[in-house]
Amino acid sequence: MRASGRYDDEMRKVTIETGILTHAEGSCLISCGNTQVICAASLGQRVPIFRRNTGLGWVTAEYAMLPRATNTRNRRESLDGRPSGRTFEIQRLIGRALRSCVHAASLGERQINIDCDVINADGGTRCAAITGAWIALRMAIDQLRENGTLTHDPLTHQMAAVSCGVVGGNAILDLEFSEDSEAETDANFVINDSGGLIEVQCSSEKVPFTDESLAQMLALARAGTETLFGIQKAALAN
Amino acid sequence: MRASGRYDDEMRKVTIETGILTHAEGSCLISCGNTQVICAASLGQRVPIFRRNTGLGWVTAEYAMLPRATNTRNRRESLDGRPSGRTFEIQRLIGRALRSCVHAASLGERQINIDCDVINADGGTRCAAITGAWIALRMAIDQLRENGTLTHDPLTHQMAAVSCGVVGGNAILDLEFSEDSEAETDANFVINDSGGLIEVQCSSEKVPFTDESLAQMLALARAGTETLFGIQKAALAN
Amino acid sequence: MRASGRYDDEMRKVTIETGILTHAEGSCLISCGNTQVICAASLGQRVPIFRRNTGLGWVTAEYAMLPRATNTRNRRESLDGRPSGRTFEIQRLIGRALRSCVHAASLGERQINIDCDVINADGGTRCAAITGAWIALRMAIDQLRENGTLTHDPLTHQMAAVSCGVVGGNAILDLEFSEDSEAETDANFVINDSGGLIEVQCSSEKVPFTDESLAQMLALARAGTETLFGIQKAALAN
Amino acid sequence: MRASGRYDDEMRKVTIETGILTHAEGSCLISCGNTQVICAASLGQRVPIFRRNTGLGWVTAEYAMLPRATNTRNRRESLDGRPSGRTFEIQRLIGRALRSCVHAASLGERQINIDCDVINADGGTRCAAITGAWIALRMAIDQLRENGTLTHDPLTHQMAAVSCGVVGGNAILDLEFSEDSEAETDANFVINDSGGLIEVQCSSEKVPFTDESLAQMLALARAGTETLFGIQKAALAN
Amino acid sequence: MRASGRYDDEMRKVTIETGILTHAEGSCLISCGNTQVICAASLGQRVPIFRRNTGLGWVTAEYAMLPRATNTRNRRESLDGRPSGRTFEIQRLIGRALRSCVHAASLGERQINIDCDVINADGGTRCAAITGAWIALRMAIDQLRENGTLTHDPLTHQMAAVSCGVVGGNAILDLEFSEDSEAETDANFVINDSGGLIEVQCSSEKVPFTDESLAQMLALARAGTETLFGIQKAALAN
Amino acid sequence: MRASGRYDDEMRKVTIETGILTHAEGSCLISCGNTQVICAASLGQRVPIFRRNTGLGWVTAEYAMLPRATNTRNRRESLDGRPSGRTFEIQRLIGRALRSCVHAASLGERQINIDCDVINADGGTRCAAITGAWIALRMAIDQLRENGTLTHDPLTHQMAAVSCGVVGGNAILDLEFSEDSEAETDANFVINDSGGLIEVQCSSEKVPFTDESLAQMLALARAGTETLFGIQKAALAN
Repeated sequence: MRASGRYDDEMRKVTIETGILTHAEGSCLISCGNTQVICAASLGQRVPIFRRNTGLGWVTAEYAMLPRATNTRNRRESLDGRPSGRTFEIQRLIGRALRSCVHAASLGERQINIDCDVINADGGTRCAAITGAWIALRMAIDQLRENGTLTHDPLTHQMAAVSCGVVGGNAILDLEFSEDSEAETDANFVINDSGGLIEVQCSSEKVPFTDESLAQMLALARAGTETLFGIQKAALAN
Repeated sequence: MRASGRYDDEMRKVTIETGILTHAEGSCLISCGNTQVICAASLGQRVPIFRRNTGLGWVTAEYAMLPRATNTRNRRESLDGRPSGRTFEIQRLIGRALRSCVHAASLGERQINIDCDVINADGGTRCAAITGAWIALRMAIDQLRENGTLTHDPLTHQMAAVSCGVVGGNAILDLEFSEDSEAETDANFVINDSGGLIEVQCSSEKVPFTDESLAQMLALARAGTETLFGIQKAALAN
Repeated sequence: MRASGRYDDEMRKVTIETGILTHAEGSCLISCGNTQVICAASLGQRVPIFRRNTGLGWVTAEYAMLPRATNTRNRRESLDGRPSGRTFEIQRLIGRALRSCVHAASLGERQINIDCDVINADGGTRCAAITGAWIALRMAIDQLRENGTLTHDPLTHQMAAVSCGVVGGNAILDLEFSEDSEAETDANFVINDSGGLIEVQCSSEKVPFTDESLAQMLALARAGTETLFGIQKAALAN
Repeated sequence: MRASGRYDDEMRKVTIETGILTHAEGSCLISCGNTQVICAASLGQRVPIFRRNTGLGWVTAEYAMLPRATNTRNRRESLDGRPSGRTFEIQRLIGRALRSCVHAASLGERQINIDCDVINADGGTRCAAITGAWIALRMAIDQLRENGTLTHDPLTHQMAAVSCGVVGGNAILDLEFSEDSEAETDANFVINDSGGLIEVQCSSEKVPFTDESLAQMLALARAGTETLFGIQKAALAN
Repeated sequence: MRASGRYDDEMRKVTIETGILTHAEGSCLISCGNTQVICAASLGQRVPIFRRNTGLGWVTAEYAMLPRATNTRNRRESLDGRPSGRTFEIQRLIGRALRSCVHAASLGERQINIDCDVINADGGTRCAAITGAWIALRMAIDQLRENGTLTHDPLTHQMAAVSCGVVGGNAILDLEFSEDSEAETDANFVINDSGGLIEVQCSSEKVPFTDESLAQMLALARAGTETLFGIQKAALAN
Repeated sequence: MRASGRYDDEMRKVTIETGILTHAEGSCLISCGNTQVICAASLGQRVPIFRRNTGLGWVTAEYAMLPRATNTRNRRESLDGRPSGRTFEIQRLIGRALRSCVHAASLGERQINIDCDVINADGGTRCAAITGAWIALRMAIDQLRENGTLTHDPLTHQMAAVSCGVVGGNAILDLEFSEDSEAETDANFVINDSGGLIEVQCSSEKVPFTDESLAQMLALARAGTETLFGIQKAALAN
């Protein structure tokens, strides 16, 4: 059993509250243990230059933390004049992951902007953001279908993300912050509901990892995302 | 009766939920009708240069909106490289107001950072931010007193803020967005629990205003802040 | 009598020299005691996006200080990459005030840019800027009327601004810097020649203020702006 | 055989020319086919704040492209006021990878800055940068050992990186640009000379990938980095 | 005779009004025809890093234009987030020129900041700025000598600057804007009162220039700066 | 003989390797002793606003140094959010010089972007950049002529640049860094193959210079650029 009192393959409690933003086409507050992220989907004005006049849609994402989402207050990025490298890396991951389950021609030449704002951070914020962002995207697309803008559903798959790590030689699922800062290896997996791998990011933090630990983490991640698919479905059913 | 169905002197329903951020020394979610603001107080590392070696404390504030707090998505200020003029104006107001009820020498040479992040915007966000920020500040100072850092209470007054306006020649209290955008005059009042005026900001939007309408709005604001003082006390009592 | 040797209701000597910029459509150097501001009105190329194809005009303002307008040299804002919060607050006030006396449809879909650059600062720079900016705007509009561009005068009112404060419990008019830094309350009033209130901004600096002191300052401001209207008229008559 | 005329497991020709910068403590020009990167190691003045007074060293990296390294000229990032998200992502990867083979205490409280500047880009620039950066780092550390600054070698491993991808269902090694833009899956592997995995980054570009294709790419990457270890050794032996 | 009605070797009327800034250690308004520049010298807090603990002083300069100094309004550089290339070029020239007549050790480890702000621009602003900046610097140093801070005069020379050009094959002195925009060659000369050349900058605008025209312009510049030395002396004598 | 072992009128060894960038329309690596600069010419998308619909072309230049081109590593300008004043000054010089030998109407309404990136710096980087940039420009224009885009050659002259200085009272040619930092006077000359002067920039660094030393440096520069014309021709002939 881990320092957190959880089993190696045990996720934290996950809840998803939909519709928390009064203006957004889709929104939710996702909580994974003490990590909380507000996810919003906004129907944008127009697609990026490289998509103009192609008939193809685009999904993009931005990620940020409230200054006091963390133990020590973080300086607002608006004062630095630019998002940090970590922010860029995370929001590029979220956007890339979401686009993997959108059929661009069915979406048509329109853009959906995803905003993921972390309210409380306790590890796994980027994975919670992806899992919640998929909900917001699903809701925004449903609205486009209900109002007749879209005749076909451009969302080809359900998708979720979960973190894994190696601590003391053991592969574990869904790290909270105290585990994350001690892990020898840190990984994030984005998987769709057909079992297709969307993104695997695995970094050695203290010691290199092996093919075996990569395989073990991948197995844990498959189980974890299965759990998340159920929670996503239940949240949308409400 | 107004378009919102409220009486001229009727405020929207206000609720304050304290302790919503796991890491902050003080925090709350304040809701004024559909307007919602997360307020956090963080004990800072050190005071600004002009306060160094003076023995005097400092309180400062930052204000922001989530991109989809509004009807149309707003570009993140971190991408523009700087907060907007409106943001600067509001956060200067919040900081100035809070400092008016803090005894700098009793606080000692330490800084408290206030963060006000608007989740949903429907008019009156700066007033909600001030009213909620006072709660966060109160909680953070209480913590400093409980852990023995402060022997005297530096918070000299309770304080709240409310908007007023003139619509169709009538002075009204606590404008929501649809009223705000039609108002001839737009005003914000910050008042303490001794009835002292902290800040009066009154702008003609469509037609100049008179001494009489200024006096009427001031009277409404005094009534409104009395109501808010009660809600603040109840929130802290929980 | 005050530290400055003036009576409570006595303004500093105000002079306005018109036409000091060789290129601008309207310009003046306004001096209020030792405070000196160059005000320029420039006919702009086009209106902001939200005014395009509306037939309505726009007036906007920018404000800055020369680095050595103050006792200690200030760093140029071009080096910080952005105007300060104080600058934003002031230029938003100037623009809002000027627009209150312009009939947007009569101006037609064109923009007038106002630039207020402080050469010497000794208190009251934003009020001097507004009073001088009105002169520059008046001159620019006169030129548009003289060359036949405008058939109706879009300037509906004359307008001026003055500061007031409470020092030692007394309301006083037109604070210079040494008074400003000691004032318990600091206020700015923008008033038009019909006596209509355009903007009232009143902040407690050291102690909260009362309805009475607000009323006293308002009365002083009405007298002060009457004086300024006469000086403005004389300057234009030359 | 692939469009490039190479076998699936065939790398492009790789050459490493050391010492090309007259001032740097370590430097090389690495060519992988038409991709060319200048890598430099500079002994820095001091460690980042979080490493001060810890006795531990730090290695950090920056990555950039000359404007005309690519088919279409890219705007210089100095004009945008910030590196792009892609740049941040790559330079964070390079720094993280290099730190994985440095024993921080043996390096002592000093920083080594790695600069990777792409002269010509034809796919695989980040992997070439890592492989070349290791050479520059090795040279800079050798100099510190030769001049007696370091008594122990802080470099614990040799390290290299290579890209893989899935094109038409086949896993292939070392993609050039024309292959990269058609790949269904795109991956980068950083591996050390003990076979330890340092970083695995695998993204679906067009279709999700499977455990099998991940395993195939990993096997190709292991073979590719073995080849690179030999080329690195030969370059240093000259 | 030229389009301006002046002889080839005739300068515009130059006036220098000293002491126009109430706070600066030295200041003047220099007018060269319609070109007007406010020059200020401020005693700075400390020298740049490369001069710390050397006992040597430093003089640096900044240059800017009011937005409506020119025929068409210029965007403020504070909004662009940086001074333009032209601004950088000019202020580097002014600083370099002034340092050429300051004995750094006699000044001692203190910095003097020079600010040159163009009020009206009609050609030759950088030369007017240098000539006026020397006056401001002279005044500031005189103040340091009068209050006993300096025992020796660090100002080794008097210095002035003037523009020349080739128009229609003729070398002419002190170009105004209409001449400047037609000139085949454009040059600026900074010369001290011993006849020493401080800076020669000569650019072909339309056709290359010859050794002969360079020599002719240099002769005109020597005559022009002699005139300016007299005007500088008279201004200081008042 | 100088510290460098060269005669006063002796240039360093200059080599020019063309075609080093795979994508650029024209490119070279120019080496002047230890100074090395990569020069690229890119055919741009469109001309600046002031050239639109004029039928006239434009040539512009950018200049940068790799961080470790110098003895001490320089911070990347992309992190400062803007190029330095020195960078602006140099790239403005390069662009101005190149435009002096281009017939804008023959080029037609198209832009050529020149990039000069210093790999190793040992004095004279701006002169090497100009001499190499002319080669890149020549190659790009030749390509436009070969593919039939241009029917007339818009390049009117060959052009090169060289630095001179005064050290110990002697005028010397082509300063390397160690000489440059000791020079009393520092000068750069841009000259075309008809002997026309394009740019003369001469600054006193330690003592003012005389007409005689200016003339001596000019003579050295004429000889130096003659040598460079030969090297340019040979490089293009290969």
